[in-house]
Amino acid sequence: MRETYLLKIGNVIRELPLIQVSDNLKIASFVILGDTEIVTDAASIIAGKLPEADFLVTAEAKGIPFVHEVAKNLGMPRYIVARKSVKAYMERPLEKTVRSITTQAEQTLILDGPDAEALKGKRVVLIDDVVSTGESLRALEELVNDAGAEVVGRAAILAEGEAGDRNDLIFLGKLPLFPIDR
Amino acid sequence: MRETYLLKIGNVIRELPLIQVSDNLKIASFVILGDTEIVTDAASIIAGKLPEADFLVTAEAKGIPFVHEVAKNLGMPRYIVARKSVKAYMERPLEKTVRSITTQAEQTLILDGPDAEALKGKRVVLIDDVVSTGESLRALEELVNDAGAEVVGRAAILAEGEAGDRNDLIFLGKLPLFPIDR
Repeated sequence: MRETYLLKIGNVIRELPLIQVSDNLKIASFVILGDTEIVTDAASIIAGKLPEADFLVTAEAKGIPFVHEVAKNLGMPRYIVARKSVKAYMERPLEKTVRSITTQAEQTLILDGPDAEALKGKRVVLIDDVVSTGESLRALEELVNDAGAEVVGRAAILAEGEAGDRNDLIFLGKLPLFPIDR
Repeated sequence: MRETYLLKIGNVIRELPLIQVSDNLKIASFVILGDTEIVTDAASIIAGKLPEADFLVTAEAKGIPFVHEVAKNLGMPRYIVARKSVKAYMERPLEKTVRSITTQAEQTLILDGPDAEALKGKRVVLIDDVVSTGESLRALEELVNDAGAEVVGRAAILAEGEAGDRNDLIFLGKLPLFPIDR
């Protein structure tokens, strides 16, 4: 039998499959890429909860449709996407590599130079789909700080595990972790 | 002096920077990631030009906000994104590696298993931001065919270089190439 977790965001209900990610842990798989409804609903709700800011910033790839919708809701013509590798179109890219506290894995995020320059001295809200350990969000925050911007808010559709206790994060729902008894 | 190319799509005008990509070629850099306006306008125009289909499919990452908007315009609750690497959330991923005719570089695209199964026997429109050599689109088409779907249309915001002569591609504007005289 397939194990699932029932999630409700706004008027949308999704049955999330549980997937095993390590010997002793399953997580509920929440993939917003491809889900027009949940992105549209969640964006319209969260847009009303954000502090005033000059730019929304996300990291590729799963948060992209969500940040696009939030920007539209706020009437913002532009948002900024940090990429995971340097692209041909980039000029003077600004790069940041952050080491994971828990896994020691390195994560690199990159801003196109003109985007980094646009951020200087500006107020930023960081946008993500799901915040769990918080390390991806921290990497994005350090990159945005390097560009000279101030992070005035952090928002995600869901907070997973201990991220559900954060009071510096705006989110619409909590996602439990599913430890495996052995 | 910065060289640029003036592009008009719907009611939106953008000054695209020319960037040098090889010894003898510059291209106009068109990056829709982060541009709420052009994505929204282009999607509403192109949605009216597409053949009837069961699914829209794109490859990450630049086409994601565009496919999201096109799906919304067509009232489609779901679309499908092929990823460039296997992700933790995937079950029974369907993988396709295609070798570039011109550069010999390999490109791998991956569908999550449930997405691949959903595509079986279905009509698909492929969505991209810019089609140039057509190789990325061909890789996506081969992957979608492997999943058992029929490609009934191909659409992009812009057709670059010789792609502007394609009659199997729906697009809103042509983007010239800029050869360098030496």
